[in-house]
Amino acid sequence: MKIYRANIIYTPSPKQLEIIEHGYIVVRSNGLIEGVYRELPENMDWRNQVIDFGDRLLIPAFNDLHVHAPQYRNMGLALDLELLPWLNTYTFPEEMKYRDADYARRMYRRFVHELWMQGTMRSAVFGTIHYEATRILADLFLQAGMGAYIGIVGMNRNSPEGLQNTTEEVIEGLKMLKGHLEEHGKSGLVQPIITPRFVPSCSDKMLRALGEFAQETGLPVQSHLSENRSEIDWVKQLEPEATCYGDAYNKYGLFGQTPTLMAHCCYTDGEEMELMRKNGVYVVHCPMSNSNLSSGMAPIRKFLNAGIHVALGTDVSAGHNMSMLRVMQYAIQVSKLNYAQTRGEMPFLTLSEVFYLATKAGGSFFGKVGSFEAGYEFDALLIDDSYLNYDNYSLEQRLERYIYLGDDRDIKRRYCRGEEINEPAC
Amino acid sequence: MKIYRANIIYTPSPKQLEIIEHGYIVVRSNGLIEGVYRELPENMDWRNQVIDFGDRLLIPAFNDLHVHAPQYRNMGLALDLELLPWLNTYTFPEEMKYRDADYARRMYRRFVHELWMQGTMRSAVFGTIHYEATRILADLFLQAGMGAYIGIVGMNRNSPEGLQNTTEEVIEGLKMLKGHLEEHGKSGLVQPIITPRFVPSCSDKMLRALGEFAQETGLPVQSHLSENRSEIDWVKQLEPEATCYGDAYNKYGLFGQTPTLMAHCCYTDGEEMELMRKNGVYVVHCPMSNSNLSSGMAPIRKFLNAGIHVALGTDVSAGHNMSMLRVMQYAIQVSKLNYAQTRGEMPFLTLSEVFYLATKAGGSFFGKVGSFEAGYEFDALLIDDSYLNYDNYSLEQRLERYIYLGDDRDIKRRYCRGEEINEPAC
Repeated sequence: MKIYRANIIYTPSPKQLEIIEHGYIVVRSNGLIEGVYRELPENMDWRNQVIDFGDRLLIPAFNDLHVHAPQYRNMGLALDLELLPWLNTYTFPEEMKYRDADYARRMYRRFVHELWMQGTMRSAVFGTIHYEATRILADLFLQAGMGAYIGIVGMNRNSPEGLQNTTEEVIEGLKMLKGHLEEHGKSGLVQPIITPRFVPSCSDKMLRALGEFAQETGLPVQSHLSENRSEIDWVKQLEPEATCYGDAYNKYGLFGQTPTLMAHCCYTDGEEMELMRKNGVYVVHCPMSNSNLSSGMAPIRKFLNAGIHVALGTDVSAGHNMSMLRVMQYAIQVSKLNYAQTRGEMPFLTLSEVFYLATKAGGSFFGKVGSFEAGYEFDALLIDDSYLNYDNYSLEQRLERYIYLGDDRDIKRRYCRGEEINEPAC
Repeated sequence: MKIYRANIIYTPSPKQLEIIEHGYIVVRSNGLIEGVYRELPENMDWRNQVIDFGDRLLIPAFNDLHVHAPQYRNMGLALDLELLPWLNTYTFPEEMKYRDADYARRMYRRFVHELWMQGTMRSAVFGTIHYEATRILADLFLQAGMGAYIGIVGMNRNSPEGLQNTTEEVIEGLKMLKGHLEEHGKSGLVQPIITPRFVPSCSDKMLRALGEFAQETGLPVQSHLSENRSEIDWVKQLEPEATCYGDAYNKYGLFGQTPTLMAHCCYTDGEEMELMRKNGVYVVHCPMSNSNLSSGMAPIRKFLNAGIHVALGTDVSAGHNMSMLRVMQYAIQVSKLNYAQTRGEMPFLTLSEVFYLATKAGGSFFGKVGSFEAGYEFDALLIDDSYLNYDNYSLEQRLERYIYLGDDRDIKRRYCRGEEINEPAC
């Protein structure tokens, strides 16, 4: 049992910012939250166990639901092209380097370190086609103690020589990764995820096999959907019998038959949107990436109104920064530009809504994660915003200023499932 | 004479990124640049004077051409409204506090310190209606040794009681500020600028008097233009005889008759655009602000194609961050969202172009500032990007990564007009 005292802030629902000034959070030894209290109950023998964080903020840790680990070296680079030429020119050549396990280890250490630095305690990660590199990545997460879904990427068409795997290889790799994680990651904090790159990269045979593997194993799925116009047109040509891009996943059982993340959805509407709602597929909104690659502005308010799950992702390296603070800022801003363009038709996202998306909404893909309600896993960040707090700011304003102005320097402690996570080697 | 050795990067023109690996820059004792050299001329007695910065980057310092000093406390706050309600709800009440000189001193010290921290060596600054507070601000710039145009804001209509001045007061204040700066700021690094808030805040009488004062003194002018749709509609009602918003300034001699900055211009087109071009009025593009207040996306490519001067501004506190790195990022990204919306009609801005806007284009308002060409004032930042430079990145890539991923931590030295600028008290 551990008891922390701080200014506690979290969002049980999108519009409900819970703020407990100098409150207490009680965490059981299994890492689950007992409760949050304004005052400790009198009859409890807890008073001498309190770890007092003073005037600091304690918030749920961030969850990045779409990020490409092997693009880490290219972060902040090569943002002068749209998606398809960007993949061919910059991204595929970089991902090819991960056949070299030493290179993978060197870069993946930096990647995991950066997640830690930015306070992202759970993530859904694309690896490459390479089993060994992806296993190294998984091991780094295990060593760090941070949660992740990690995918060996499936791609066997429209991809350069040297960056393709066969259907058999990707299934075999996923099985090995699953076995490895069952053996070495007993806590289940790190898990495999089925990861067809996107429809243009995967033959029908591969998609079908991955869908069948999902049904067999119950493993979740992640991929890309309706990111930009040229890509959507291409999918129409490649899969003429699919009624929409999403249907090209759905007909193979890769669209919510098991828990599913679909990144981007900038142009998702109509039938595709309805299918996502019905199947409980998550939209992973990556507004930083969508701006950097000139993809477009995803209609997030529409998705939320329709009751579709929405989470946030950095999409590094199409997103140029691994900070979920930045993603929250962009999510609000892009929704505001949408608002300006539609002359106020779609209300923009609020601070509390994007904080919810970055914490509880994203966390829900990992179980009871991303909130401080009783029974949730204690994933948290301790924030020292004292340099920003030089006037009479309210706690809500302090959160807002941290989100808009803060950075990795402000995070003083990080917790995942109750454990304090120390700085990983880099 | 001083000679610095470093990796020197600057943009003589928007598409020309000059990169001199381990080059030399020679700065005369008057603060002007003698030249940039790949090798020091043999016959010069300079070799023993070289200050060697090793593998660091040396770039022109940043210029923020639109920032509101008295909104510093609200930075990163209160971004849930559009322009007009935002002004009334958050901004005007904050600006009223600056009748208190102690409050002004306390906040303005932080503001000037933050400019320094972010590497912004020149800025065009809105103060408030208050002479004393604005003089304090000017003195802080003088003490710091950083360049600025500083305006006492004129506003005498549609503004709350307690935040209005008369035409006589604003002219008198400007005269006093001018006298004060002529007496105490002999170098001319800090100058007054005529600052009608915007058309809705200023009666015809005030605009006319300010225009006449501009002609008399030759002082430059700064204001706001065509920021959002409601504001533009309002100006139409207030100034029915003006042929466009810009014409409401122009007819009073406040639109390029002396050097003029107009912030925003999100909806500037047609006649207004032509008037800006003809009169040499600067567009100050504030994409961070335009996103935060749901204002819109200024058509910067169109302005550049038309040969209009464009500079960049943070517009704090409608912009939530004083880093010009962030403004550069947003300028590219907003241009890319524009590109996506117009289906590629307007090519987006490139890295070299926004770097040019943040340095030489903005600097041109201050004279020969913002480049490392011979005869330019030596305004520079020394950047240590070693933590980002862990693989074989080219110097161009290192600049790109610094712009996308860097922050104030990376700036190791700052120079303005040849002098190293030390950290101001805060």
